[in-house]
Amino acid sequence: MSVEKLEEYRERIRTELDRVVDFWLKHSHDTQHGGFFTCIGREGKVYDELKYVWLQGRQVWMYCRLYRTMERFHRPEILQAAKAGGAFLRKFARVPSGDGGSSWKCAFCLTRDGKAVKVQRTIFSECFYILALNELSRVTGDTDMQAEAEQMMEQLVVWVRVDPSGLGRPPMPGDPPADAMAVPMMLLCLAQQLSEGRGREAERKYEELGAWCVQRILQHLQRGGTAVLESVSLDGAELPGCQGRLQNPGHALEAGWFLLQHAAARGDQQLQRTAVDKFMELPFQQGWDQQHGGLFYFLDVDGFCPTQLEWSMKLWWPHCEALVAFLMAYSRLKEPQLLDRFTQVYQYSFSHFSDAESGEWFGYLTQEGKVALDFKGGPFKGFFHVPRCLYMCERILDDLLEKKDR
Amino acid sequence: MSVEKLEEYRERIRTELDRVVDFWLKHSHDTQHGGFFTCIGREGKVYDELKYVWLQGRQVWMYCRLYRTMERFHRPEILQAAKAGGAFLRKFARVPSGDGGSSWKCAFCLTRDGKAVKVQRTIFSECFYILALNELSRVTGDTDMQAEAEQMMEQLVVWVRVDPSGLGRPPMPGDPPADAMAVPMMLLCLAQQLSEGRGREAERKYEELGAWCVQRILQHLQRGGTAVLESVSLDGAELPGCQGRLQNPGHALEAGWFLLQHAAARGDQQLQRTAVDKFMELPFQQGWDQQHGGLFYFLDVDGFCPTQLEWSMKLWWPHCEALVAFLMAYSRLKEPQLLDRFTQVYQYSFSHFSDAESGEWFGYLTQEGKVALDFKGGPFKGFFHVPRCLYMCERILDDLLEKKDR
Repeated sequence: MSVEKLEEYRERIRTELDRVVDFWLKHSHDTQHGGFFTCIGREGKVYDELKYVWLQGRQVWMYCRLYRTMERFHRPEILQAAKAGGAFLRKFARVPSGDGGSSWKCAFCLTRDGKAVKVQRTIFSECFYILALNELSRVTGDTDMQAEAEQMMEQLVVWVRVDPSGLGRPPMPGDPPADAMAVPMMLLCLAQQLSEGRGREAERKYEELGAWCVQRILQHLQRGGTAVLESVSLDGAELPGCQGRLQNPGHALEAGWFLLQHAAARGDQQLQRTAVDKFMELPFQQGWDQQHGGLFYFLDVDGFCPTQLEWSMKLWWPHCEALVAFLMAYSRLKEPQLLDRFTQVYQYSFSHFSDAESGEWFGYLTQEGKVALDFKGGPFKGFFHVPRCLYMCERILDDLLEKKDR
Repeated sequence: MSVEKLEEYRERIRTELDRVVDFWLKHSHDTQHGGFFTCIGREGKVYDELKYVWLQGRQVWMYCRLYRTMERFHRPEILQAAKAGGAFLRKFARVPSGDGGSSWKCAFCLTRDGKAVKVQRTIFSECFYILALNELSRVTGDTDMQAEAEQMMEQLVVWVRVDPSGLGRPPMPGDPPADAMAVPMMLLCLAQQLSEGRGREAERKYEELGAWCVQRILQHLQRGGTAVLESVSLDGAELPGCQGRLQNPGHALEAGWFLLQHAAARGDQQLQRTAVDKFMELPFQQGWDQQHGGLFYFLDVDGFCPTQLEWSMKLWWPHCEALVAFLMAYSRLKEPQLLDRFTQVYQYSFSHFSDAESGEWFGYLTQEGKVALDFKGGPFKGFFHVPRCLYMCERILDDLLEKKDR
């Protein structure tokens, strides 16, 4: 592929990132209570004032990452909004964990002024809380905040690796503990986040956790290496029924670039190959809709119809993950078909999800590619997957083009 | 409308009911453990062995109702299956309620051999458990079973009207108690079920409950009588945000025929008018897709895009409820446009949901009317809405045609 083509991609991606950042700066800030509105309509109108904690944490993280690492986003208004978001989270997101002890959980959803609406019995709100506080502390130098993030991380690791009872979900005889791939993926992401640039001691501490996460993620490669399954037993066996057969191609692709990053940092050639072949190429081949284009949301590995009503819809985030995965893989391996894959997803995504009129991306298309839900932000779509994808792709392209120049 | 047309509808509906019953008799019985498989593919293959308690209870109820009230279904195999389903429920569905007391809840989902997989913190598994046991006790004359159903009903009423803490959902400061329309609807349905033919004392007992339910349901008529909303505050005010604006036209139509039945039994002309105008005509006008036909699943009363991914899909059960509602309304009021509505829904339903090849109905179509999920049974679709609709329509048509003959 020509340098011109890569330049063209980078230009489009850079412009798109600017437009996306502008959209959220303009429409999502709650200047009265701090934090962010995330239910935002097609043209920017707030249609619900609830504040989803996953999305609060993700927006703080993304703002700080942009502020910290990209010169054109090193702007006071971005730092200011991130700080207000962090303050809102610290003030309102934590709720007693309900195990009678002294530990905290994070609510899943808050009212505009910070009253808890719902608490999930999983670890994900806490994950994004940690992600936010850690990245914010890197920008502000607030060591209290850093310590709080690390403390909650320790609690999280206990819930996942030692005793989940603090999460509040009673054990069920017919539902033995299982490994949802999201759990080791999130912990791996956090291990990378928390150890970055913190010195040898932090590195060692999180190295062991990272290796454990990688091993857990690899257990999801099933059926003789021919399929990535969303949930497996704790010792890596396939689960019965629909739950066991469920595939989420976009999620496998996200795991793919997490694994690739981990492999690259350690020069692990074998893991790199597995990441690309099994967690990118395989889910792409199985998940791409040959008829209408785009990645299916869910599939059943035996070809049954998934029971999720949205299984055949095309969601924005699997495409974001695919873009990052294939471009990162290309930048490491330089195999041309990886760039072809990127191009294929790029063309689908920019022609279907990106809204030329009002900015940002639509999130939810029908199988045929028609916009099915026209809002730009909702309970699960905030300032995260789109800007993270554009940010990472821009940086990878910078790197590729810089090397080509030399 | 001509008698011939009504005869034609009845003939088609009767044949369809036979085919639907045959499908479940053939494919859903677990002769090893009792109870019913409900995850059943397009052609009848079981694709998951989990047993959803809502659907177990509903199938027992439906079998017994058919056995008890329709001569051609008064068959030993139907009674036998209902009894096996009831025995499975009584043996496995109840789990300790988790409030530390002596009360029981029902699991939401069981393994094939009856181990609890999931317990919801709502009342609906219990509702269908009661429905099943009460109807089964009417067939078998088992007074123990009848008493157990009534006892659980008392518990349910306490949870709804006095103290919900036994349901296990901790109160949240940002989520004040609200009234989901499903709750008074289910209690009204149960009050009718439990009081039928049980004498004056039972009638009085459930009369008060029924009146309370009707009042609660009517509170969902909002905005000066121009919209039925799914959730309102306990004192009948609109809730903020998406939750407050949510509409479910099929659910409103179901409430419509519940109210109409209640009104008819009491000769309440005013309630009858409200049921037809506000809970049938209004949701139909707002919910019918003028472009592609069929009823939307969810709508936002202010025209925002609902956040439910499946909002624009066409589900089987709202159409079942609409068929019952408009035919029942026509049989009471004899207004021709009510039969036109019925005809419109009938034509859409039989041409889109009914599967001429393998029997039963598809459950989930795209907005455009294409089959999106091709199974006949799933976690929320069992032997209930389709046969209940066909059963009730057949009986209403019997009644209408008998009167026309006179």
